[in-house]
Amino acid sequence: MRPQDTIAKKRDGIELSDQEIRSFIDGVCDGSWADYQITAIVMAMVIRGLTEREQDSITEAMLHSGNVLDLSGISRPKGDKHSTGGVGDKTSLVIAPVVAACGVAVPMISGRGLGHTGGTLDKLEAIPGYDVSLTVEGFYSIIDKCGFAMTGQTDDIAPADKKLYALRDATATVPCIPLIVASIMSKKLAEGLDALVLDVKTGSGAFMQRFEDSHALAEALVRTGRRFSVKTEAVISDMSQPLGRFVGNAVETYECLKILRGEADPAMGPTTELSLELAARLLVLARAQSDLAAARQMVRTKLENGEASDAFRKNVELQGGDPRVCDDPGLLLDQEIVKAEVRADASGIAIEIDTLAIGNAVCGLGGGRTMAGDPIDHAVGYENCVMIGDEVREGEPLGVVYCRSAQQAESVVDGLRRAYSLGDEAVDPPDLVREVVA
Amino acid sequence: MRPQDTIAKKRDGIELSDQEIRSFIDGVCDGSWADYQITAIVMAMVIRGLTEREQDSITEAMLHSGNVLDLSGISRPKGDKHSTGGVGDKTSLVIAPVVAACGVAVPMISGRGLGHTGGTLDKLEAIPGYDVSLTVEGFYSIIDKCGFAMTGQTDDIAPADKKLYALRDATATVPCIPLIVASIMSKKLAEGLDALVLDVKTGSGAFMQRFEDSHALAEALVRTGRRFSVKTEAVISDMSQPLGRFVGNAVETYECLKILRGEADPAMGPTTELSLELAARLLVLARAQSDLAAARQMVRTKLENGEASDAFRKNVELQGGDPRVCDDPGLLLDQEIVKAEVRADASGIAIEIDTLAIGNAVCGLGGGRTMAGDPIDHAVGYENCVMIGDEVREGEPLGVVYCRSAQQAESVVDGLRRAYSLGDEAVDPPDLVREVVA
Repeated sequence: MRPQDTIAKKRDGIELSDQEIRSFIDGVCDGSWADYQITAIVMAMVIRGLTEREQDSITEAMLHSGNVLDLSGISRPKGDKHSTGGVGDKTSLVIAPVVAACGVAVPMISGRGLGHTGGTLDKLEAIPGYDVSLTVEGFYSIIDKCGFAMTGQTDDIAPADKKLYALRDATATVPCIPLIVASIMSKKLAEGLDALVLDVKTGSGAFMQRFEDSHALAEALVRTGRRFSVKTEAVISDMSQPLGRFVGNAVETYECLKILRGEADPAMGPTTELSLELAARLLVLARAQSDLAAARQMVRTKLENGEASDAFRKNVELQGGDPRVCDDPGLLLDQEIVKAEVRADASGIAIEIDTLAIGNAVCGLGGGRTMAGDPIDHAVGYENCVMIGDEVREGEPLGVVYCRSAQQAESVVDGLRRAYSLGDEAVDPPDLVREVVA
Repeated sequence: MRPQDTIAKKRDGIELSDQEIRSFIDGVCDGSWADYQITAIVMAMVIRGLTEREQDSITEAMLHSGNVLDLSGISRPKGDKHSTGGVGDKTSLVIAPVVAACGVAVPMISGRGLGHTGGTLDKLEAIPGYDVSLTVEGFYSIIDKCGFAMTGQTDDIAPADKKLYALRDATATVPCIPLIVASIMSKKLAEGLDALVLDVKTGSGAFMQRFEDSHALAEALVRTGRRFSVKTEAVISDMSQPLGRFVGNAVETYECLKILRGEADPAMGPTTELSLELAARLLVLARAQSDLAAARQMVRTKLENGEASDAFRKNVELQGGDPRVCDDPGLLLDQEIVKAEVRADASGIAIEIDTLAIGNAVCGLGGGRTMAGDPIDHAVGYENCVMIGDEVREGEPLGVVYCRSAQQAESVVDGLRRAYSLGDEAVDPPDLVREVVA
């Protein structure tokens, strides 16, 4: 079958057969479809949509475009969490050790940050020596020893996704729920999981800002997980303001270590709260706990009794990182960093925060990348001091920029100030968990 | 402006500005848009459609992506005819000399055959020595001397179209009226015409088989021509059966020469009839005649008094061809050719002809090409003996294959027989001219 014939069907909105979709994904991998043919059919998919059958078929073809992990040597149930990405979204670093401490293995294959969102790998690399390029054997062995391991995507995990994503990024075809689902799920299904919790972000700092889009994505992800026999649940969580206190790589890892050590300050509260909720739900899905109340109790206990912190320390040692940061998280913070306050130029109540602008500002400081492969500065970041519903007085800090020079601070301070909309009337703070799709 | 941003707008069905379309077409020419970005936006254009403003803007941008002929040195009015392509569609070779003999200059830039349709350049090249790669100066000079010249598209005429068409052909994005209009009109407008007659084919041998599609294309072409100040008219003509007696390169040129010499047999009648109708309409548009009746009279006179034939002979000489074919058209026919009859296997009335299958059979014999640039065999072809509405008896010939061997004939005879649907009830022959869009 010629690519043109398959493209023509999708162009006209006709459902593709499993075989047509397989030959498309095979063609992405083996080069028998030209890039310009791939983007033509992808645009047709974005506009015409895909049926559930087509979506499952793409997910399966992408999953089988590469290898699937064989974790049969690990007898514990396997679970993972995946987030659609946000600003200050650092829960993986808390969830993985907590869940591991509760007896569920976490084979976490993560990504790097792109645009306004951070990536778990970049945060982990703020720990001196930490290796996120594990071999498959090293990955298995570390999971076996400390209950979890965190590594980057290898070339043989869903290779079709990598190529497809790069082309979608260059052709404005990223926003398409079925393709997002196939991209996420082909990688997560390759982990050989029993249970998966998805953190679907919604609000000004999320990829999908509108709640109904986030809801549709959550539904599609959950349906797909189940279709492939993985217990799956999605939590739609608030991203209308940064999550927790910090945005940036080293500062976010610092925040997680403080939480794991029981030293969290109130500004870090939302990070703890969301991490534990996602961890508890994962335990129930993985059948490590029979009900949510017991699971919530268990994760809090493992956090408070230091077992989660111990698991993290052991993981840092096994992945080659400097374990001293576990004893003194302050070591992660660069002493050379320049801090600059962003002060309110009026008094009022914070009614809205342009979280995307905050993420982009940190990216602009060098804390993120606009092109895959760009180097980043792990030390720069932003400390958010005001949450929606808070009252602010003129001259008080809205946040603090962590950067390299006064000049650099200058370049972002005004934009960050404008990210906060102040009003006269009281507003309720947004719920951290907006909905659970089970 | 990044290509992604323009692509995203079209993806969402938002009208593009003139500037966005210009930068897209500039990007096609200068490589600043990658092929995979071009095909993504083209697919979005095919599915979302284009407004009239966008279509005009693309036509204009493509026209100005290259050079426009300067025919100001020729004082006669300039006119041309363009056909959307069919099977046995050979009218250019009659129209050009007839119109030139009537005092209207014809600067005809033609194409080659692709797939089931033939191309004027291939037909002309059946004349030994005939040169279809004229320089601009040669083109002007020949028009000046004999009233018309026929050449291939140079690289500097609408270069964006050439690249865009190749990508559309590989990505199932050819069937899109606004892009077809831009492709045709950007090249025709580059000829610097006063008048243009478009022959839009409809039926089983046309690119657009359904009448309503052909009608929509005709309307869009006429609107666009007028928008660019060229007197334009479209004739929607029948392509539910081959036009005239022959399909193939040398045999079609033979048919035209017989017509020009006044030696046409009845089977060639439709070719004469359609050619003269299109020529007459072109004369009126170019204001060489004030009304259609007078124009019809004039073209018939010029054909009958030999002036058209003289113009053709002069053109052949000027373009390097062997003028002896004008005296003895039979010289065009290869004496080595093998003829094989396609006989009816039942008796009945021809109610339908799969003209596409006939075009594809001739292409399969080597008379056409599936890929641009493929060599062709000018001598092979097909003689159609039965028209819709004709009565046929079992064993009588439906047509005659002109090919290289009995074996080659064997490979197409059954398919050609099946191209004719025979029935019991009388049917009216289709009208040659279905509609005129003025």
